[in-house]
This record gives sequence, C-alpha cells and structure tokens, in this order.
Amino acid sequence: MSFQNDLTRAQAEVQEELDRLLAAFGEDPVAEAMRYATRGGKRLRAFLALESAALFNVPRARALRVAAAIECVHAYSLIHDDLPCMDDDDLRRGQPTVHRKWDEATAVLAGDALQTLAFEIVADPATHPDGAVRAELVLTLAQAAGGGGMVLGQALDIAAETAEAALTLEQISELQRLKTGRLLEWPCRAGALLAGADPAPLLEYAAKLGLAFQIADDLLDVEGDSEKAGKALRKDAEAGKATFVSLLGVEPARAEADKLIEQAKMSLLIYSPKGATLADTARYVVTRDR
Amino acid sequence: MSFQNDLTRAQAEVQEELDRLLAAFGEDPVAEAMRYATRGGKRLRAFLALESAALFNVPRARALRVAAAIECVHAYSLIHDDLPCMDDDDLRRGQPTVHRKWDEATAVLAGDALQTLAFEIVADPATHPDGAVRAELVLTLAQAAGGGGMVLGQALDIAAETAEAALTLEQISELQRLKTGRLLEWPCRAGALLAGADPAPLLEYAAKLGLAFQIADDLLDVEGDSEKAGKALRKDAEAGKATFVSLLGVEPARAEADKLIEQAKMSLLIYSPKGATLADTARYVVTRDR
Repeated sequence: MSFQNDLTRAQAEVQEELDRLLAAFGEDPVAEAMRYATRGGKRLRAFLALESAALFNVPRARALRVAAAIECVHAYSLIHDDLPCMDDDDLRRGQPTVHRKWDEATAVLAGDALQTLAFEIVADPATHPDGAVRAELVLTLAQAAGGGGMVLGQALDIAAETAEAALTLEQISELQRLKTGRLLEWPCRAGALLAGADPAPLLEYAAKLGLAFQIADDLLDVEGDSEKAGKALRKDAEAGKATFVSLLGVEPARAEADKLIEQAKMSLLIYSPKGATLADTARYVVTRDR
Repeated sequence: MSFQNDLTRAQAEVQEELDRLLAAFGEDPVAEAMRYATRGGKRLRAFLALESAALFNVPRARALRVAAAIECVHAYSLIHDDLPCMDDDDLRRGQPTVHRKWDEATAVLAGDALQTLAFEIVADPATHPDGAVRAELVLTLAQAAGGGGMVLGQALDIAAETAEAALTLEQISELQRLKTGRLLEWPCRAGALLAGADPAPLLEYAAKLGLAFQIADDLLDVEGDSEKAGKALRKDAEAGKATFVSLLGVEPARAEADKLIEQAKMSLLIYSPKGATLADTARYVVTRDR
C-alpha cells in the first residue's frame, strides 16, 4: 500500500504544481485547453522525476518543477498525437480529446504552448540556483523530445504504417526507445542532474523500464478494457501494425517485460535501500490498467 | 548599398548555420521538412540578433546560434500557421507549404521539432560559456513564444475572427505586439544578453519596429504583389478583418509606420554610431516587398 500512497500523494502534488503554473494564463480557449490537457493521467513521468530526485535528497520544490515540465511535454505530445491527421482519437483519459472538445486549431496551439511552457519552467531560476544545471536540463529535454528523440520516433512510426515490410523486433525496439523511451528517461536523468549526481545507473534503469512500458502498452492494446484505459484500444491489430506482442506472442511478451523489470531493479541496487520506490514503479509499469 | 550587402551576407551565414545544425537529422520526411522550412526568407529576426549582438562585439559564432534559433521558432510558427485548421495556406516564400508538399502529420511534427530545436540550440554550451546566460536566453525565448506571447496572440487573432465586434486600434496593437512583436523583440534582447548588457534601449527599439512591421504587413496585404511576396495576399480584406490599414486608411497607416521608424531610430542613439545598421533595418522593415 505504501507505493500506492506515494503515487497518489505525488499525483496530487504534481496537479497542484501544474495548476499553479498554468494559472498565469488567461481565459482564452488555448489557455483553457492547456489546463484541460494537463489534468489527470497516471503521472508516471512526473513520479520518475520526483523519485529519482528523492534518491539524492533534492529539495521537493525543485523536483516538482521538473516533474511538471515533463508532464507538459507529455500532454503536448498527446494533444498533437490525437489530431485527425495523426492518430485521430476522440478519447483520452476518458474525456474528449482537445480537438474534439474545442477544435483542431486550438489543439495545435495548446500543444505548441505546452511544449514552450515546459522549457520556460525548466529554465526559470526557481528550478535550480545554478544556471548551468538549468541549461543542461533544457538541453537534455530538447534532445529527448525533438527530431532526434520523440518526434523522430513518431516519424518512424508513421513511416512504418505505409512501409511494405513489417518492422523487425530490433526496429520496433529502436522506434519505441525514441518514441516513448526518451521521455521516460529524461525525468530519471533530471533527478540526478538536479543533484549534480552521475545519472548513468538511472539511465540504465530507464532504458529497461521504457521497453517494459511499451510491451505493457502493447499487451494493454490486445487485452485491456478500453473503458478502464480511457482511450481506444485494439488499434494496432486493426491497423495490422507489428508490435512486441504480434511478433513475440502474448505470453513471451509478458515474460520479456518481467525480465526487463528485474533488470531495471538491478540498476537500482547502487542506491539501496533508497531505490525501493523506483523498483516498485518498474513493477507498477507492467501491471497498470490490467 | 552597404545595408543590402550586410543583409545578404547575414542571410548566407544564417543559412549555413541552419544547414549545419539541421544536418544532424536523418532522411525521414520530418527531417526533410525541417530543412525545407528553414530555407529562404528575409531572415529579419536573425539579422536583428546579429546586429544587436554586434553592438556589443559579441563573438559572431555565438550570435549566429541565437540567430538560427529564432529562425527555427519563426519557421515552426509559419508551418503551423499555414495548416488547413489555421490559415490554410498553400504557398509560403513562393514554395508549397509543408503540409502541401508532404502532409499535415509531417507539418505538425516538423513544426514541433523546430520549436524543440530552437531551445536545444540556445541551451547548448556553444551559445555562451555561462550557463546562467543560456538559461536566461531560454526563459525569455519561451516567454516570447508561448501561451503568454506569440501563441496567445494567435489565439486572440482566431477569437477575433468570430467575435461580433471588430477590434479597436488598441486591441489590434496588443494582439500584434504578442503575435509578431514578441518574436521580433527576442533577438534584440538576446544580443544584449549575450554581452551581459542592459537590453532596455533595444527593447524600446524592437517595440516600435514590431508595430511598424505589422503596419507594413497590412499595407502589403492591401497593395502588394502576391507573386513577389511569395504568399497569398488580400486575405484580411476577404475575411473582413480589422487591421491598422482598415481602421486608419492607407496613407495615415503609412505615416504612422514612418513615425514609428523614426522613434525606433531614436532608441538607438545611445549606441551611436554603432546603431546605423539597426536604424537601416527599421527603414527596411517598412519598405520590403513594395
């Protein structure tokens, strides 16, 4: 129960931080949509930031800013992903997607502004007194999110849909490392950077966690309950898309995810006993919504 | 002729810098679209960065990075502005817009990645050895571009299209200060920040220049040659949109722009005689494409 308590407390704190940061914006539809799109969600990325920072006793207020920033990037990517020209989704976290509740122009602009806000939050002196740390956080976040990171993953994903040959397991791993892995890695890195600590063990942890996360997502798409997930499912199979599950089969995919989680937990031994919550987080990632 | 020489030389240098920075990306359509969208253009924002930095003898290599960054933000904003759900434009700088040459998904992602790249460029140690300067550049760029800056201006512009009452002159000034003014102001500010100098006189210059720029844009929309401009014109009148020109009339609008240019030049006297090129730039802004 302690893990669930920690997560629930973190979710409330992160929401409060986001509400505070977004209160500065006005009453125009884009500002409303920014607030709407940053409500709810599991806050996995934020929690990774908070728990990574907690390993090094980083002041909570600083960790919360980094946590809020990564949730802004995540929300921006979901808004744009859901657009009719991308995945064309009507439902997100059990609510209408931004372009369904407002319109496409509002969705494009709200996503744009949430990306900008993430960098504004990180670069602000309140995040860390040392400007070099803030600049390093900005640089690594941009590398994770941009055309060599998440957006490249999305571009490869779109290209795969019209490609003649289905992706190999290796290609799917690389695509997912970019598309979802880089934004799971960054909050772990940020926790270490805020403390001036070596991020290497956390990056190792995040790499395993990221792959396990994607396998769990593929399993959810096959086995999950769309009402519980709050979004459309069975989309991969309908699109004839190669996934970890379509290539490995359900049970071997589950076994692979379990193996990755054990490897992720190994990377945390160096922080023992402080890494317990991050270890629980790895386990949580493959059991969520099932 | 010296001004035109300076501008032409700067355009070539900025293109070279952008080509170098964008060479790191792959051959996927999003990367190609990023390169495509950062070719051409007058490079006014980049030139403002270079000339503001030159006032303080900032090393050219640093100024060029800031110049490239603001052109990335500008290119991102144009790609998203041109989308069917926004202005729905087919032509930009005399070439097909990104969503016409590729598709909407590629345009959304290329714009997203160009915004990210701007922050990556600014936060990189090559931009300035002092991390606090880099963080301040990131922070002010985010404030200029985001939901309290350019994107807010775009949101207000969209809202004005469906509003019952036409905008007043004061409301148009405020909207344009956000929508185009903030991204003309930032490169001027950045030139001073790179040198640790007080940006106040340059911000005053940029405020006048920004309004004059918008009046010139409105005049161009009414009087210009769309072939020469490389984009669709007469859009404001067709949309029944209130502009400086529709509210003031052609000749008074031109007189107002001329007055603003003289005020902009006054703000540069403190740098005399070094501000001559920025003074010429102000003049250039109201005579371009006519």
